[in-house]
Amino acid sequence: MKLVLVARVDLGMGKGKLAAQVAHAAVSAALACYGSPAFRAWLREGQPKVVLKVGSEEDLLDLCTSASEAGLPVQLIRDAGRTQLEPGTATCVALGPGEASELDQVSGHLSLL
Amino acid sequence: MKLVLVARVDLGMGKGKLAAQVAHAAVSAALACYGSPAFRAWLREGQPKVVLKVGSEEDLLDLCTSASEAGLPVQLIRDAGRTQLEPGTATCVALGPGEASELDQVSGHLSLL
Repeated sequence: MKLVLVARVDLGMGKGKLAAQVAHAAVSAALACYGSPAFRAWLREGQPKVVLKVGSEEDLLDLCTSASEAGLPVQLIRDAGRTQLEPGTATCVALGPGEASELDQVSGHLSLL
Repeated sequence: MKLVLVARVDLGMGKGKLAAQVAHAAVSAALACYGSPAFRAWLREGQPKVVLKVGSEEDLLDLCTSASEAGLPVQLIRDAGRTQLEPGTATCVALGPGEASELDQVSGHLSLL
């Protein structure tokens, strides 16, 4: 089991901003499946996470589409825009938690952040 | 309401590693107070987060002590050590979610990551 977190690197977010967006995605993913068998299995394994990157909004949205089509849980994070970014900017996405092999089918081609 | 996430910058963690540790802290904090009034208030406000930094393990652990003494929820994250770090390394801490003013009393002196 794992949770895949994918962040855009074309927005020039600082390390802290990036970490906050990734954390937002992770919390949203955990709460969206709270109590489910996948959630419990993921938690039992120590809530493993991998953080990957994409270079554009298009790549991020394409990834959401592929993951949805594959039946995976998807959480797209849009920034509130209080700092650094325009309100509503898509910054990152959480895929899962789910089986690593299923997640790899849609995100296995991406590089680590 | 906010959730304060504090990461060590003296470990030389890469951006992705750092984001994963901060995400781990955020998920742990959210699950630890799941369903409580503080949790619901925080979620209703859009789960605001701030990511701060400390420069040593001592500073991180001192912060945990201060926060515990102040009655704040504290989640200390230790890395499983599968990559980059020694197993058990304290990497970051989550304080809250809670009232911003109460959190600022123990973390207000720290800089943004």
